[in-house]
Amino acid sequence: MVRRQPDHDNESDWTMTTTLDELYGKLTTRTGAKLALIVLDGLGDIATAAQGNMTPLEAAHTPNLDALVRSGCAQGRMIPVAPGITPGSGPGHLALFGYDPITYQVGRGVIEALGLGVELQAGDVCARANFCTLDAEGRVSDRRAGRIPTEECERLCGILKRKIKKIGTTEILITPGKEHRFVVIFRGAGLEGPLTDTDPGREGHPIAEAKPTKPSSAKQKKVAKLIKDFYKLALPLLQNEKKANGFLLRGIAHQPDIPDFESRYQLKPACLAVYPMYKGLAQLVGMTKIEGPQTIREQFERYLAEYDNYDFFFIHYKYTDKAGEDGDFEAKKRYIEEFDAALPILLQKKPDVLAITGDHSTPCAVKGHSWHPQPVLLHSPYSGTDKLDRFTETGANQGSLGIFEAKYLIRLMQANAKMFDKFGA
Amino acid sequence: MVRRQPDHDNESDWTMTTTLDELYGKLTTRTGAKLALIVLDGLGDIATAAQGNMTPLEAAHTPNLDALVRSGCAQGRMIPVAPGITPGSGPGHLALFGYDPITYQVGRGVIEALGLGVELQAGDVCARANFCTLDAEGRVSDRRAGRIPTEECERLCGILKRKIKKIGTTEILITPGKEHRFVVIFRGAGLEGPLTDTDPGREGHPIAEAKPTKPSSAKQKKVAKLIKDFYKLALPLLQNEKKANGFLLRGIAHQPDIPDFESRYQLKPACLAVYPMYKGLAQLVGMTKIEGPQTIREQFERYLAEYDNYDFFFIHYKYTDKAGEDGDFEAKKRYIEEFDAALPILLQKKPDVLAITGDHSTPCAVKGHSWHPQPVLLHSPYSGTDKLDRFTETGANQGSLGIFEAKYLIRLMQANAKMFDKFGA
Repeated sequence: MVRRQPDHDNESDWTMTTTLDELYGKLTTRTGAKLALIVLDGLGDIATAAQGNMTPLEAAHTPNLDALVRSGCAQGRMIPVAPGITPGSGPGHLALFGYDPITYQVGRGVIEALGLGVELQAGDVCARANFCTLDAEGRVSDRRAGRIPTEECERLCGILKRKIKKIGTTEILITPGKEHRFVVIFRGAGLEGPLTDTDPGREGHPIAEAKPTKPSSAKQKKVAKLIKDFYKLALPLLQNEKKANGFLLRGIAHQPDIPDFESRYQLKPACLAVYPMYKGLAQLVGMTKIEGPQTIREQFERYLAEYDNYDFFFIHYKYTDKAGEDGDFEAKKRYIEEFDAALPILLQKKPDVLAITGDHSTPCAVKGHSWHPQPVLLHSPYSGTDKLDRFTETGANQGSLGIFEAKYLIRLMQANAKMFDKFGA
Repeated sequence: MVRRQPDHDNESDWTMTTTLDELYGKLTTRTGAKLALIVLDGLGDIATAAQGNMTPLEAAHTPNLDALVRSGCAQGRMIPVAPGITPGSGPGHLALFGYDPITYQVGRGVIEALGLGVELQAGDVCARANFCTLDAEGRVSDRRAGRIPTEECERLCGILKRKIKKIGTTEILITPGKEHRFVVIFRGAGLEGPLTDTDPGREGHPIAEAKPTKPSSAKQKKVAKLIKDFYKLALPLLQNEKKANGFLLRGIAHQPDIPDFESRYQLKPACLAVYPMYKGLAQLVGMTKIEGPQTIREQFERYLAEYDNYDFFFIHYKYTDKAGEDGDFEAKKRYIEEFDAALPILLQKKPDVLAITGDHSTPCAVKGHSWHPQPVLLHSPYSGTDKLDRFTETGANQGSLGIFEAKYLIRLMQANAKMFDKFGA
């Protein structure tokens, strides 16, 4: 049940607003309603003749979703960023969290760090790093150092970590990833990205210099100097390695300044995700990470336990995306069915507003993320019914939500939670 | 019939336009076509299980609308302001008249004055006023003066009106409303809103000072001074009243500068509305008010009589909104049926372009305005047919107009009237 109706005698001061986000902000009242956003990563798909003109969502046996739809839902499809644009996980989730993904860009270094579970702080500058092979003249002869094994990468990162902890007052944090990949974080005052890559982009060229993208920025210049110094300290430590005697930095960026979720929406948010990157993206906007659950059943059970402690629950389910990336139709269908089987746990304490969607499509035929608008289902006492029997891409095409930009989903959720005062008299 | 085809040999100068409205303007040709916009206030609704998963529009018996749809109509749904935002009547109608409701904000004082039938002039500053009770220390003890009867409010407004006609060169106009409510208008040169409320928002505090929202504005400062002087003159006149010995001002705003409808669209507009607020909103954009008709049948008959005198008819029907506000499904359905029964009168002289829609939704389940996109029907020789049998929310979801912002409806009407030259070669 929606907890409290806004007091319409104390009207919002909606005059003189200049941006839409500002207007939404002025109209917002905290009502104590419970909102849940369930993200089946890469849920959206396309129907192809090879699969009987069905998408995995259409082919799946989903009795619990079907019952939810028949109890009254609005459906539609969402454009993650802009027509034709395929988002990564960063923009996909930022849009779901209501932040324009073109305005709020998260650099690759930051995404990579989040994916490795690094806890970032405001102002951190992050770089994706690759070990590489340098020839006698210092030219890059293999940009991936022969894809050294992960254990080798961990050993080398260990050496760098032990020897390089600080440059001046700036902390240097090094975290190994898979194979030849690692992440370098520069933590200290007065730093800013983005800078150009030190990766020359092809073999036969020396390591490039990281240059400020905004030449007038003193903060970027400081980072450029730090990177130069970091190379001076690090390369001698690797000089006796056969394969990984060098490294390249890419996507050098700082954690963007993103408005805090709770202040923006008047909702106390919690994240129930299993994979580090999604926890990191949630943390980036100020959500509290709830640690522990490893399966969707456990995530829903934890939702029940934490129901009274938060107003907004972001619940992330990874496996639909993985199956899509593998082009494995049957697996994607099966993961949707597993999700459906767990859904009644969540519905034991039905949120006032429930949205089920993806962060983007990952069609099996594409074997990767895509630009196809993902289907979305919205359920609340005020969602009405679109008279559809199931939640599917084809049905969603006929839904009352139409096709809209994903960044507006949270605004529709807030509206369904009766969190907005009326605009104008 | 569409009167005249634009002369495509004399092409519009569409180069160098900077805004979309400017582009529309440059492409516009006056053709003499007749356009009618019929607004069933709060028409949109949501289907809920409690009402057999039907909306009032879906449940209503509408043989005349059905016949119109089958003769060829385009349907769609319109977002009144932005996703999730519930509009008041002001923004709802400004959007229908083609004015961006966020750019052109009409203050509450102005809306209240229009609702009381006050004829506003450009530059008027309006304030909603409440009589209130002040204690011996001048603190507000009842913000609504015990909801004094309307006759009492009229008596007190009479006293203020007789004694305060001008402050300096500024005219003061006082108009009583219902119960404790009235409106104060400041008419003179060099005035501007908005100012902050004098309503402290809760009991136990003194009357607040009205402050400029833009501190650098000399015009707002002038209004602030006028309000101070108004209180000095008015409070002594009320000091012997038991309940209504004070008053609070809210929504202090000036009539916004809205581009004239006829110049903007090359259409000579008339308003056929019964309620003062809608006449006022029409007048705000420069429509001519046609007075007299009290029922939808009379409005349609007057349309026939005035057919040759105007190019654009705004016909407003209030009762669907009232029924929605009351949560009275059967009444809303019946009012739609009454409207449908009257429709053949209008169709005796079918306009070249006919649009039937709402200014927003007022779902019975919400008992108030809402954010749900309202359905719209567009009929012209060029509307085509969406192969739908009826005009309903669910059908409109599948219509060829899709879901779009309400401010574009008038542009679609102009396009259907062949008023736009081609853009580009």
